[in-house]
Amino acid sequence: MQKHASSRRAFLAATAAGAAHVWIPRPVKGYSTAEVLAMTPLDSARGGPVTPMGTGISKWDLDTPALCVDLDKFEANLANMQAALKRNRLDSRPHAKTHKCAPIAKLQMAAGAIGICTAKLSEAEAMIANGVDQVCMTTANLSPNKIRKAMALRKKSPHFIQAVDWEQNAHDLSAAAKAAGVVADVVIDVAVGTRSGIPAGEGAIALAKLIDRLPGLKLRGMLSYDGGAQHINTFATRKQRTLKNIEDNVATFEALKKAGLNTGIFSGGGTGTYNLQHLVPGFTDVQVGSYIFMDMQYLAIGSEDGNPVYNDFAPSLTVLATVVNNRFPGRLTTDAGAKALTLNTPRAGVIGEPGMDYNAGSDEFGSITFKESAKTYRMGDRLELIVPHCDPVVNLYDYIYGIRKDRVEVVWPVTARGHSQ
Amino acid sequence: MQKHASSRRAFLAATAAGAAHVWIPRPVKGYSTAEVLAMTPLDSARGGPVTPMGTGISKWDLDTPALCVDLDKFEANLANMQAALKRNRLDSRPHAKTHKCAPIAKLQMAAGAIGICTAKLSEAEAMIANGVDQVCMTTANLSPNKIRKAMALRKKSPHFIQAVDWEQNAHDLSAAAKAAGVVADVVIDVAVGTRSGIPAGEGAIALAKLIDRLPGLKLRGMLSYDGGAQHINTFATRKQRTLKNIEDNVATFEALKKAGLNTGIFSGGGTGTYNLQHLVPGFTDVQVGSYIFMDMQYLAIGSEDGNPVYNDFAPSLTVLATVVNNRFPGRLTTDAGAKALTLNTPRAGVIGEPGMDYNAGSDEFGSITFKESAKTYRMGDRLELIVPHCDPVVNLYDYIYGIRKDRVEVVWPVTARGHSQ
Repeated sequence: MQKHASSRRAFLAATAAGAAHVWIPRPVKGYSTAEVLAMTPLDSARGGPVTPMGTGISKWDLDTPALCVDLDKFEANLANMQAALKRNRLDSRPHAKTHKCAPIAKLQMAAGAIGICTAKLSEAEAMIANGVDQVCMTTANLSPNKIRKAMALRKKSPHFIQAVDWEQNAHDLSAAAKAAGVVADVVIDVAVGTRSGIPAGEGAIALAKLIDRLPGLKLRGMLSYDGGAQHINTFATRKQRTLKNIEDNVATFEALKKAGLNTGIFSGGGTGTYNLQHLVPGFTDVQVGSYIFMDMQYLAIGSEDGNPVYNDFAPSLTVLATVVNNRFPGRLTTDAGAKALTLNTPRAGVIGEPGMDYNAGSDEFGSITFKESAKTYRMGDRLELIVPHCDPVVNLYDYIYGIRKDRVEVVWPVTARGHSQ
Repeated sequence: MQKHASSRRAFLAATAAGAAHVWIPRPVKGYSTAEVLAMTPLDSARGGPVTPMGTGISKWDLDTPALCVDLDKFEANLANMQAALKRNRLDSRPHAKTHKCAPIAKLQMAAGAIGICTAKLSEAEAMIANGVDQVCMTTANLSPNKIRKAMALRKKSPHFIQAVDWEQNAHDLSAAAKAAGVVADVVIDVAVGTRSGIPAGEGAIALAKLIDRLPGLKLRGMLSYDGGAQHINTFATRKQRTLKNIEDNVATFEALKKAGLNTGIFSGGGTGTYNLQHLVPGFTDVQVGSYIFMDMQYLAIGSEDGNPVYNDFAPSLTVLATVVNNRFPGRLTTDAGAKALTLNTPRAGVIGEPGMDYNAGSDEFGSITFKESAKTYRMGDRLELIVPHCDPVVNLYDYIYGIRKDRVEVVWPVTARGHSQ
């Protein structure tokens, strides 16, 4: 087991290493975000400061740790996902929990998405306050205060859709909708697995019927998100599990249809199952999130063509780090630890360095061990890392640098950073 | 190994569970931070809004996830650490990387600390900008921009001390100090282990002599932080390793002394070794951080009296979470996942529920499994969690609620949240 984990780690490190060539100029000035923002004019269309391509600051000249997205890869991911879903006659309703960034949500809408998902109320509030419409909140709001605020949001944004997974919550929401003077669009959240939602079957059907009757609510359909399926290794196993696990949900969906209830939305899935969801009868749209960025976790799940690397989308999101210690043989220390990368499993991948094992277990430092390295690193040199898991990493940073051909083209605020409530 | 890990987990869960009684009123309003701030007058002395004790909002009425510190426990931890170090004739120089909160740094100074440590330049800038003086930055600044800013900080705050661990960096810093019109106080950072700092011995002594000669720098002494020693299980093992690992550093310190160099500072150690550092000849002060909050990681390391629970300090820091799914037997889902707790190892501890295993592996959800629970949980009920590891958790939140007798007494900003550069 240990051996297997170790060889798998080596394989993934090699995968990450191949993502791009490493170019590490010195000395770097180390511009902070405030300095970059002060040097770049604001581009209202894209929601952040922007510099003309080719004239921006070199990414190697940014202070570190710095969160970067390669815009060419990001845009290709965006286009490829839209095209793939279109081929399969599905819509996209991308999940903003991945990027928490209003400008990126707008780019997803401009690329053809029919809406944007959010996981938390404060995330939905931040998106709508920053001009993102068509928000679907995929979890229920339970407390009186959150219910009241959700209905205030519905009043402000007529396209807001709210998930409900409990009878009492439907009653509470209907009352709050009436108090706010709205009829709220809701979807029932039907569980796949045991994490969230109402179990498929009679209870879910009864909940849908209750919502259909309640004066303050309008049923729009159902959600069924199989979170546990997204990272299953090998496409074949993922396919088998995804289609089996959703069988009861499909039966529930068909029962709703048969009962004459609104089944306009049958939504779920993610980056790991985007090319499987069209095999689910009645499915309408996919809540893809990570595809725009990718990470070491997703790279490991394997693609449909049997490639052990999941290469449907390119790893566009990286963290730049600085070597702060090179004094010990076979070791390097960087300035990017747990507060720059969150999780330590899977390991962050060092671009251009297949032999490096990156340990982000310290709060402030990354500890690299290696037997062989592609080059010799001096103090102050930069390294570029593919992150372990994109969602929680983005949630650490206030800004994402949009990079094109190694230069800063745009600086995006992480609009809903820390909005976990 | 699996069995051992599992029984250890159960032991730690039981430890956390005993921390306090659970009282869960319903319905809760779920006040957001903005609402709490709007309802509470500002207390400039403590650096945040404050309500008279007993009249504040109940912590059970806060929107979740919410980061809370029990002020009685926090203040006892502060006093106990000061008293313990005083008994051992050591000073305290608490590390702000744990709390990143200027008001807490000020309370540490008021309790008798001789200074405050920071790990990153942007953290030092935030502390000094918010009225915390006597800052010692424990890592070196390498890039030209960071070096320039560090010296601007030195000009602004004459007590600022900067770590240096490399000859070229000493030259660069001296030049920057001269350009800024200051003579900068510096300490050499001497490695314990292989993570950061210059190795003990001739190289370190040469660096100290170089600094002593350079016109822009003033040598103040040396740092020696053994990060790897802090979480070693059992006091006896921790003691043995701590004293052995620092032997070379002590020899280096004595050589500096013999050479007539300034050895006014010999600083290091942390919450795991605070009661061992006085056994290190010449040691002056301890960079304790986690003692004010504690966490599941520190609770597991064992205390001097042989208790398997490290109970020298009380776990004051908690995250409040809400039950959002109770539909599946032996399972609960909460709204506090990886974005509320960062690490999943060690597990978060559920206060009052020794039988619960808390999995924070999902981005948005906590997944609890249990065979037995102390009570039956309804949708919307609150749970209180001891966090896996305090430093990265605090770095996720913009505010910490200071709680006394279950009511919000003060709201502290996490001044340097996200300042990882």
